Amino acid sequence: MDIIKVAGTSRTSAVAGAIAGVFREHRYAEVQAIGAGAVNQAIKALVLATKYLEKDGISIAFIPQFSDIEIDGKVRTAIKLIVEEHVPSGPRKEEPEPSPES
Amino acid sequence: MDIIKVAGTSRTSAVAGAIAGVFREHRYAEVQAIGAGAVNQAIKALVLATKYLEKDGISIAFIPQFSDIEIDGKVRTAIKLIVEEHVPSGPRKEEPEPSPES
Repeated sequence: MDIIKVAGTSRTSAVAGAIAGVFREHRYAEVQAIGAGAVNQAIKALVLATKYLEKDGISIAFIPQFSDIEIDGKVRTAIKLIVEEHVPSGPRKEEPEPSPES
Repeated sequence: MDIIKVAGTSRTSAVAGAIAGVFREHRYAEVQAIGAGAVNQAIKALVLATKYLEKDGISIAFIPQFSDIEIDGKVRTAIKLIVEEHVPSGPRKEEPEPSPES
């Protein structure tokens, strides 16, 4: 499975389509971005991809990691965004209400 | 619970500490960033916060959203990162291998 590489000049909708496509097939995707502009595009694409996949009943969430990669002989720190299925764990629940009197 | 607001000049470790602190208390956190520099800092802070919380046996993942907010009478689109507990759903599994012949 290929890593989806995002540049600052990448079109958000194209990246989002790629993320959704890879995720539909593998139930997993990896997105890589180097630099603030690229990370920003990647996150915007992730918002869109989340919406695309919601239409298929799929919830996704992301885990960010640092990833050292070599480009032209220089080591650069990329941000790698691991895309996984999101299983809501219920953290949005309000305080429990055990009885109407409380 | 306060939204954790990140600027392009925010210190990554300070933001990471805030995310981890809020998450430990509420099992939920929201991070807001406007602009590429701020989004980049927010994602780097999430990498660190993920590591901090791993030490407590807590796995987190985030869900990005667009969020329109008004600043000085102008509407700007912020990125809101919802931080939730991550329940691994096993998407990293390789293809099933039903038999050695296949």
